[in-house]
Amino acid sequence: MLSEKDFIKKFIKPLGDKRGKNSFDFTDDVAVINNYAYSTDTIVEDIHFFKKDKPQFIAKKLVRVNVSDLLAKGVKPEYCLFNFSAGKIVNKRWINIFIDSFNSDLKKYKISLIGGDTVNTKATTVLGLTIFGKIPSKGIKLRSNAKKSDFIYVSGTIGDSSIGMNLIKKKIRFDKKCKENLILRYNIPLPRMDLLKLIQNKANASTDISDGLLVDLNNICKMSELGAEISFSKIPKSSDVKRFISKNIKYEKLILTGGDDYQVLFTGPKGLDSYKNVTNIGKMTKEKGIKIIDRNFSDLVKGYSHSLY
Amino acid sequence: MLSEKDFIKKFIKPLGDKRGKNSFDFTDDVAVINNYAYSTDTIVEDIHFFKKDKPQFIAKKLVRVNVSDLLAKGVKPEYCLFNFSAGKIVNKRWINIFIDSFNSDLKKYKISLIGGDTVNTKATTVLGLTIFGKIPSKGIKLRSNAKKSDFIYVSGTIGDSSIGMNLIKKKIRFDKKCKENLILRYNIPLPRMDLLKLIQNKANASTDISDGLLVDLNNICKMSELGAEISFSKIPKSSDVKRFISKNIKYEKLILTGGDDYQVLFTGPKGLDSYKNVTNIGKMTKEKGIKIIDRNFSDLVKGYSHSLY
Repeated sequence: MLSEKDFIKKFIKPLGDKRGKNSFDFTDDVAVINNYAYSTDTIVEDIHFFKKDKPQFIAKKLVRVNVSDLLAKGVKPEYCLFNFSAGKIVNKRWINIFIDSFNSDLKKYKISLIGGDTVNTKATTVLGLTIFGKIPSKGIKLRSNAKKSDFIYVSGTIGDSSIGMNLIKKKIRFDKKCKENLILRYNIPLPRMDLLKLIQNKANASTDISDGLLVDLNNICKMSELGAEISFSKIPKSSDVKRFISKNIKYEKLILTGGDDYQVLFTGPKGLDSYKNVTNIGKMTKEKGIKIIDRNFSDLVKGYSHSLY
Repeated sequence: MLSEKDFIKKFIKPLGDKRGKNSFDFTDDVAVINNYAYSTDTIVEDIHFFKKDKPQFIAKKLVRVNVSDLLAKGVKPEYCLFNFSAGKIVNKRWINIFIDSFNSDLKKYKISLIGGDTVNTKATTVLGLTIFGKIPSKGIKLRSNAKKSDFIYVSGTIGDSSIGMNLIKKKIRFDKKCKENLILRYNIPLPRMDLLKLIQNKANASTDISDGLLVDLNNICKMSELGAEISFSKIPKSSDVKRFISKNIKYEKLILTGGDDYQVLFTGPKGLDSYKNVTNIGKMTKEKGIKIIDRNFSDLVKGYSHSLY
C-alpha cells in the first residue's frame, strides 16, 4: 500500500483543480472555495480506534482531529457532514453513547451538522467528517508562509499522546495516575480553540501536530523553503511525560516523532510565548533542514536534514 | 442495525443546525450553506460494490451517485472531497485503474477535487465523496415543493439497474446482449446532466431515483403534503427490461421498488414531457398516498397509501 503522501503525489495531485488554485496543490490540510476553508479526516477501526475503545472517546476523536485541522489554519469550524459507515461493533448502546458524545462535542465547538450519510458495512467501522468554516479577514494560515526571521512556537505539551498510546499498546506498567493522564491525552485530543485569535492575528505559518513534531515542522520548512533550529530542552513536556521518560529513556524520542498531539505548531514574530500555553522552541533558518542544537538526535533528523523533494 | 431513516430521525436530526435552517431538517439529500449545496454519499465494499467488480466501475459509481444527488436538485456539482479508505482489495493495479476512471469522470462532469484523505483499513474498502456546487438563481429544487396541480415526470427508463443487479446476484441466464445492457446500467449510473436546465427552470419538486420509484415518489408526496396518482403502463421501460420481464414476470415489480436507477423524478407544469427523455407518469393529488391507477399492486403501495409520519 502506498503512503498517503505518495498516493497524493502520484494520483490525487494530477486530479486537483487547475494547478492547485483552491487546494494549494495538496500541500496543506485544507482547501479553500469561496472564502470557506474545508478539511476532511477519516478514522478507521483497528487503525485510529479499537473495538474496545469507549464510543464516547471515538466520537470526540472524530470531531477533534477535524477541528484541529481547521483551527491550526486560523479558521473556526462552523459546519460538518458526517459519513457514518457502521460495522460489527456498532449496536444500539454503542450508537447511543457515540451520538451523545458527538452531539456534545459539536455543541462545545459550536459546529452545525448539515448532512451526512449512514451505511452498514457489516465489517469495519469507518467514520468520516468533512468540516468547513469561513476564512477570517486576515486570511488562512498555511504551512508555506514562514519567514526566515520567524520564531517557532508550540502550544501545550508535546509527546503525551504518543506515550499514552504506547502505554496502552505495549501494556507498560507505570504509576496509575500518571498513566491515566497520558492515556487520556491519547484518547481525547484537546484542540486549542483558546489560541484561535493568536493564530489568526500573529502566526505566519501554522499546522497542527498530528504526524509528530519533526514531520510537521519539516512540512513547514519544506513548504516555506526554509530550515529550522530547535532546542530539545525547550520543547514543553508535561510532568507526566518527564516522569515516565526519566524511567523509560528509550521513549524520549517520541517527543519528536510521536503523533496525535493535536497541539499547534506555528511561526511568527518574537514574543508570542508571552501568551498562555505557548512556548518558543527555536527559529526558522535560511539554511534548509532541521537542526536540534542542544542534543544529538542525528538519526531522527537525518530524514529532515535535506529537503525531501 | 437501524435503517438510515431511523438513524437520521433519532440521532442526527437533533444534532442539526437550529431547526434545520441549512439542512432542511434532513428531509432532503442536500444541505445549503452560503449559496452552495452540499451532498455526501459513501459506497462500501460488499454492500454497494464487490471485490470482483472492475475498479473503473466502482470509481464511476462513486462519482455518479454523488453527481446524481446534486443534479436532481438543479445544482451543477463543482467541487469534491474524497475520503479513500483502502482495504484488502486495493493493490497498485486496482488504484491505477480506479484513479484513471475517477479522473476521467471528474473531467467529464467538470468537477474539481479540492481535498480528501486516504487511510489503509486493512479490511473493507470504503469510499466517500462530498460534493458541492453553487445554487442557481432560481434556487434549489427540494422534495417539498410539489404543487397539487403538478404533473409527475421521470427521465430515461426505469428498472434497468435493479434488474441488472438481480441478473448478476442470482446468476439468471438470459439473452447475452440484453443481459449485458442491463448489468451495464447497474454498474455505471448515467446522471442526466442533459436535464439540468429543465430541472432548474421548470421543476417544482425533484429527487433522483436511488431508493426505488415508489420510495422516492413517496418522499416527494410526504414532504409536499400531497399524494400521487401514477400509471404503471406510462412508466418508461427499456426494450431490454420489457423483454426480460415478458419471460420473468415476477421481476416486474422491480420497476416500482428497485433502486439505483439514478434517473430524475420531478414534478412541474403540464407539457414537460415534450423534452427529450422525459416521460409523464401521472400527477400529484390533494389526497395523500400513492395510487397506481391501471394495475393492482396493492401490496407494494400499502406502505405508501398513508403518510408515514
